[in-house]
Amino acid sequence: MPLSRAIPFLLLAGLFGLAGWLFLSHEEPGMRPTETYIPPATEQPITPIPEFLALDARKVELGRRLFHDKRLSRDDTVSCASCHDMRRAGGDGQVVAIGVERQMGTVNSPTVLNSAFNFSQFWDGRATTLEEQAEGPVHNPIEMATNWTEVIRKLSRDEQYQREFRAIWPDGIKAANIQNAIAEFERSLITPDSAFDRYLKGDDQALGTEARKGWDLFRNLGCIACHQGVNMGGNMFANLGVMGDFFVDRGTPITKSDLGRYNVTGREEDRHVFKVPTLRNIALTAPYFHDGSIAKLEQSVETMARYQLGVELSAPDKTALVAFLQSLNGRLPVVVP
Amino acid sequence: MPLSRAIPFLLLAGLFGLAGWLFLSHEEPGMRPTETYIPPATEQPITPIPEFLALDARKVELGRRLFHDKRLSRDDTVSCASCHDMRRAGGDGQVVAIGVERQMGTVNSPTVLNSAFNFSQFWDGRATTLEEQAEGPVHNPIEMATNWTEVIRKLSRDEQYQREFRAIWPDGIKAANIQNAIAEFERSLITPDSAFDRYLKGDDQALGTEARKGWDLFRNLGCIACHQGVNMGGNMFANLGVMGDFFVDRGTPITKSDLGRYNVTGREEDRHVFKVPTLRNIALTAPYFHDGSIAKLEQSVETMARYQLGVELSAPDKTALVAFLQSLNGRLPVVVP
Repeated sequence: MPLSRAIPFLLLAGLFGLAGWLFLSHEEPGMRPTETYIPPATEQPITPIPEFLALDARKVELGRRLFHDKRLSRDDTVSCASCHDMRRAGGDGQVVAIGVERQMGTVNSPTVLNSAFNFSQFWDGRATTLEEQAEGPVHNPIEMATNWTEVIRKLSRDEQYQREFRAIWPDGIKAANIQNAIAEFERSLITPDSAFDRYLKGDDQALGTEARKGWDLFRNLGCIACHQGVNMGGNMFANLGVMGDFFVDRGTPITKSDLGRYNVTGREEDRHVFKVPTLRNIALTAPYFHDGSIAKLEQSVETMARYQLGVELSAPDKTALVAFLQSLNGRLPVVVP
Repeated sequence: MPLSRAIPFLLLAGLFGLAGWLFLSHEEPGMRPTETYIPPATEQPITPIPEFLALDARKVELGRRLFHDKRLSRDDTVSCASCHDMRRAGGDGQVVAIGVERQMGTVNSPTVLNSAFNFSQFWDGRATTLEEQAEGPVHNPIEMATNWTEVIRKLSRDEQYQREFRAIWPDGIKAANIQNAIAEFERSLITPDSAFDRYLKGDDQALGTEARKGWDLFRNLGCIACHQGVNMGGNMFANLGVMGDFFVDRGTPITKSDLGRYNVTGREEDRHVFKVPTLRNIALTAPYFHDGSIAKLEQSVETMARYQLGVELSAPDKTALVAFLQSLNGRLPVVVP
């Protein structure tokens, strides 16, 4: 092959490398879900969501179709988009997720938006990559309730898929390739250009008085100790209920999912430990918390302050924090289902 | 036929008559959903949920099976029990109902428990009987999305249904008979013997100090002006937001369902008017309000006091009212799906 014809492939390889570096650099190399992750001791600065990420457009497009493809579930009723709906800011707006045969899940669907920036996936962080995450719901008996053999059998009947997979990977429709395509699509779901990001970039007028007061409170009260980094969350684990017993006060029985990271590590100190969720677009993703037990943003703020910081917020402070959180709504991606 | 052989039939006819009188007596004769209901000017007393109602056991049993039969939906995925789950106190625990093809509804599923005692059904009261209500979800395009012709066609293939229907009604499997059986089953879903009902019946020890204080507040603050009668609700319509604009403060756009009874009558004064929901078992049926926008009982109490009574509750008063509401949990019916 003449060198000139190889140039597009070399460029593509470079893009892959860059994309891989961008995302894998967020993860501890060699981390397995069964090990306890030690959160970074130093606070990561909050940085604006980038305008775009270097991604493989063919994988993104293929992943977009797979993400909306109900054949990934046992009875062809549930797609990734069923619980991660772009019209609902990447969540489903319900208390808990609903799987095949309308089975009710045990946790609130986290938003897929900006999930590329999380250091691990799921509330308990049991997947370290988006690729690994994509496998979870496919196998979960109360979510998609199927397996790769079955999914590949169904997808292989689709000639367009056959062609598109083979154009990217010589081995065609394989589990790892499906996961990679879906993950690449998910990495395209970022929401830059929030008012707060414009403020971070130097636009002093981007935040109103209330939101700016909220931003000060956010730092001074200590919210930022956990909601940090580009995603304002998603880069460490934390105990839910540092300053009070969230679960006793909730008043409903403790479920297995309430044990959080304990289910991954089996260590007593990981009981009720969860991945700190992103605050990006938080005003759009009610209800809140791993159990979906909080309906309102204001109530989330109040509850977090009480159980994580030991602070009872005044009404004006709550209002300011909510105004700040509303400034985190970014530009939602336009996705054709 | 000798008289002695007719006695069982006469007894049965008597039972039918009694059951009919018990339930129909709750409704204005001749009321159609397109007319505005004028709430009773006088407060109805709160009375205990009766231990049992005189019902036709054959219809209850047939209705139980129909209630759990997914063939009542277009694609055989949704039964009445999908949104009115006995394990979830007759609701579904989600923000809004989910219909066929996982379509999201626009209102929170009301509990079916004690619905026999409501003067009308649905949040906007557009059905005056449980029979009429049963037709709604079957036809609703985002709920069961089918029609009686189709349902009857499917059910008629079932020989057991054929036999059981014909044993009750000479005309067999007909829409009116399906509705009647389901309604009769629903009338069996009553929850007597709550702590509060035992208190009403004279057991002074049935309520704790907190709950008794809550009961005093419930009357003195005026909650009882709307949550009245045997079901502590379900016997009048009321405007949501008498003393403040619930919808402006909610912060999300107003939906068609938010218009409430206006959708039934088209009258300006019925905008945001809803049937007052029952408070029976309210502690078990989160989330709350027609839009499912309130996750916690305490928050419901606070919100109701603010928007309906113009009162900001103190923390101890809220606690007492919640304790009182918890005393309204009755004995849940044991239903085999």
